[in-house]
Amino acid sequence: MNYKLMLRTLGRTLQLEGLCLFLPLGVSLFYREDPRPFLYTILLVLLLGTGLSRLRSKPDFYSREGYAVVGLIWLALGLFGALPFWFSGYFTGYVDCLFETVSGFTTTGASILTDIEALPRGILFWRSFSSWIGGMGVLIFTLAFLPKVGGRTQVLVQAESPGPVSSKLVPKTAQSSQILYLIYIALTALEILCLSLAGMPLYDAAVTTFATVCTGGFSVMNASIAAYGLPACEIIITVFMLLCSLNFAAFFLVLTGRARQALRSDELRFFLIAVLLAVAIIFWNVRPLYDTLGETLRIVCFQVATIVSTAGFSTADFALWPTLSQLVLVLLMFLGGCAGSTAGGLKCSRVLLMLRGGLRTLRRLSHPREVKVVKLDGKAVDEGTLSTVFVFFSLYCLTLGATAALVALDGESLTTSFTAALACLSNVGPGLDAVGPTGNFAAFSPLSKVGLTLSMLIGRLEIFPILILMLPSTWKRN
Amino acid sequence: MNYKLMLRTLGRTLQLEGLCLFLPLGVSLFYREDPRPFLYTILLVLLLGTGLSRLRSKPDFYSREGYAVVGLIWLALGLFGALPFWFSGYFTGYVDCLFETVSGFTTTGASILTDIEALPRGILFWRSFSSWIGGMGVLIFTLAFLPKVGGRTQVLVQAESPGPVSSKLVPKTAQSSQILYLIYIALTALEILCLSLAGMPLYDAAVTTFATVCTGGFSVMNASIAAYGLPACEIIITVFMLLCSLNFAAFFLVLTGRARQALRSDELRFFLIAVLLAVAIIFWNVRPLYDTLGETLRIVCFQVATIVSTAGFSTADFALWPTLSQLVLVLLMFLGGCAGSTAGGLKCSRVLLMLRGGLRTLRRLSHPREVKVVKLDGKAVDEGTLSTVFVFFSLYCLTLGATAALVALDGESLTTSFTAALACLSNVGPGLDAVGPTGNFAAFSPLSKVGLTLSMLIGRLEIFPILILMLPSTWKRN
Repeated sequence: MNYKLMLRTLGRTLQLEGLCLFLPLGVSLFYREDPRPFLYTILLVLLLGTGLSRLRSKPDFYSREGYAVVGLIWLALGLFGALPFWFSGYFTGYVDCLFETVSGFTTTGASILTDIEALPRGILFWRSFSSWIGGMGVLIFTLAFLPKVGGRTQVLVQAESPGPVSSKLVPKTAQSSQILYLIYIALTALEILCLSLAGMPLYDAAVTTFATVCTGGFSVMNASIAAYGLPACEIIITVFMLLCSLNFAAFFLVLTGRARQALRSDELRFFLIAVLLAVAIIFWNVRPLYDTLGETLRIVCFQVATIVSTAGFSTADFALWPTLSQLVLVLLMFLGGCAGSTAGGLKCSRVLLMLRGGLRTLRRLSHPREVKVVKLDGKAVDEGTLSTVFVFFSLYCLTLGATAALVALDGESLTTSFTAALACLSNVGPGLDAVGPTGNFAAFSPLSKVGLTLSMLIGRLEIFPILILMLPSTWKRN
Repeated sequence: MNYKLMLRTLGRTLQLEGLCLFLPLGVSLFYREDPRPFLYTILLVLLLGTGLSRLRSKPDFYSREGYAVVGLIWLALGLFGALPFWFSGYFTGYVDCLFETVSGFTTTGASILTDIEALPRGILFWRSFSSWIGGMGVLIFTLAFLPKVGGRTQVLVQAESPGPVSSKLVPKTAQSSQILYLIYIALTALEILCLSLAGMPLYDAAVTTFATVCTGGFSVMNASIAAYGLPACEIIITVFMLLCSLNFAAFFLVLTGRARQALRSDELRFFLIAVLLAVAIIFWNVRPLYDTLGETLRIVCFQVATIVSTAGFSTADFALWPTLSQLVLVLLMFLGGCAGSTAGGLKCSRVLLMLRGGLRTLRRLSHPREVKVVKLDGKAVDEGTLSTVFVFFSLYCLTLGATAALVALDGESLTTSFTAALACLSNVGPGLDAVGPTGNFAAFSPLSKVGLTLSMLIGRLEIFPILILMLPSTWKRN
């Protein structure tokens, strides 16, 4: 392992985290709140980051270094990003601070806070802003602005790119990530504008937007988006949550006049069908609970969008909905958005490949002489990629089972334990029962919180990097 | 499709079912109960079976005919086997009769009966005996005694053999199945003897044994095995449930002096470790609920054995146990016993292959130049087999999700809906909450019952045959 290069990359990332912290510091000063939590953290992070980034190292950088450094960087961002919360004194322990920070960076949006509104605006700004940073992947972020770090950057992108097949927009990685980043910023600016025009105060519009475009779901209100009572804003957020569940490459295609190509995507169609089907089933199922058809539709669309995009805002307590609706939401938690988006979950393309691969196996058994390949967007999918998708799903379920078993130690209900684990692994945020939209993760033991924190990271980094960190062979000398 | 040969095979099976029905008829006459439900069914089934078996056909028999006929035979056995229940007048509808019969033949042991003890002994004998028939697979049964049916019988065994890798005991299929069948009968005789010696009445010992060796779990008492209050019998049943979760080939090896070879099985070791681990965790978790350590151990061992073997008897209401214990039981429901046993679930060898395949993928990602094969019992596992295991798991989860969604329409709790689907798919029987050890499946709608019946068949036939029946391409002309 090239430890020096790994530490150097880590150092660069910490420097960047230090720079990002100036923004919440500014917010803190603007609202005349105590700036010290940010000042202390910035000092510490910049010193450590600068120290590490000065290490000299050989440029050798292989797969395992790539995976390991991705895992370590996200861990470090969480560990140091938790410091402002810790210094602020509003949190009861460091584990809680870590949970909340990792929940931000991984764009999960699960919270241990029982009274969010009691916190200073600077702290809440950092909470939402950290999820915005996490949204596009800190690595793509790093790559776009610091293309000089490391030798083989493509390895990093492979380890982190959210989906089974990475389709590059333009040949150079750094250029691709700059384009994605610009789209991300444009979506952010557009949503802030829309929400402001619809009547939301600027601060609220900004933090809500941060949590929407990254599909994180942190809100600064105890009652989440329902607190504003602005139907127009709910519709705007619904639209942006769905947009940010699409492959960002689609926006690039649309912007460069290739909208048709974007619409021909199998994954996009699968995602839209899943969303429409879920809306139809739940609409039919919860219709008697609300006054008008319009209100029902708006509430159902919002809840479906918030779960499938893995944002996790809420405008209704779906934990009180009929069983079928709850089950559909649980299935959407598994599904998640499209690959190449900021959403979590298994991703639509993986589920689609699993369905097609499953059908192919059935056909092969009944017609052994036929040769069939699985296709995506008209192109044959490599057998290695296909088999990795199935392995991915199995490891996903295994991680889910292990996390749920750990959480079950606390003795909360089976539904709570299972959906808490799923909501963290799929980076959704809220689950059902005690961790439903009106609940939170405060009641869990520190052990459960650490386990859930880990599963947020495992889910966000598409499982492999964190699990590879746990393999003894990764740490062996060559 | 060679429909004539399929119908002829179906005819032979119905003849056999007719012959099997003479046993409950005898029991009925012995206890001076109404024999007409059996007489009518025997007449109908024998006439139809004889008619169909006289069809002349070409001997062509390919994979898809093999899978299709396996699916159809099990469906037909259920449809006609339900008639004695229907004629008896003790059931409220034909769907209930079908549910109970398929639950028997698939060795699930899920029941829609609320007062079992009110039923005549002949009817209850048929209920348990049908699960005994199902236990070894009606096809292996058919093959052993009617080796002349069909041309390519190996296809049938492949379609039905419970596990990913079929290891033949002796070269000829018919001979193998006769050996397995003799082991099965020997285990049955031994358990009846043990239970009788331990103080259980002969009738009860017989029906309980039928439901144990097939890992079905039907009991003739409302309170299941707890009703007898005989700790010795509980221990005997625990031992036989575990024995019948092992690959039956192991008994053959032991009987022919190759015990060492039997013990070297990776799957056997994995199964034992899983059982011991589950017992240890649950023992620690439920210890405060019972009086003595001995009683706790006996109860925990019984419940772990009953779930992992997918029998589904009970001596304690585990739906009232702490969350962790319930979750461990749910994980065991997924796992099931060893391949080549009468148990259901995913099977230990599949889970073991998934774990090893998953680890291999992780190692490959971090060390791309290493070439690694996945091994089982020291032998390299074919990549096709391995990838089918992962596909199997995905289709298993998909079926589970679809069944749970259908059942959720009834509005029972999420835990009830999910565990009802899992308990049927894995052929366990009881689930949690409303379908826990003290509950039953009576309250579900006919639609849910049909869905659950189908998932019992899908699970019992290792998923592929029933799903292949649903593919339009299976029914297309060549």
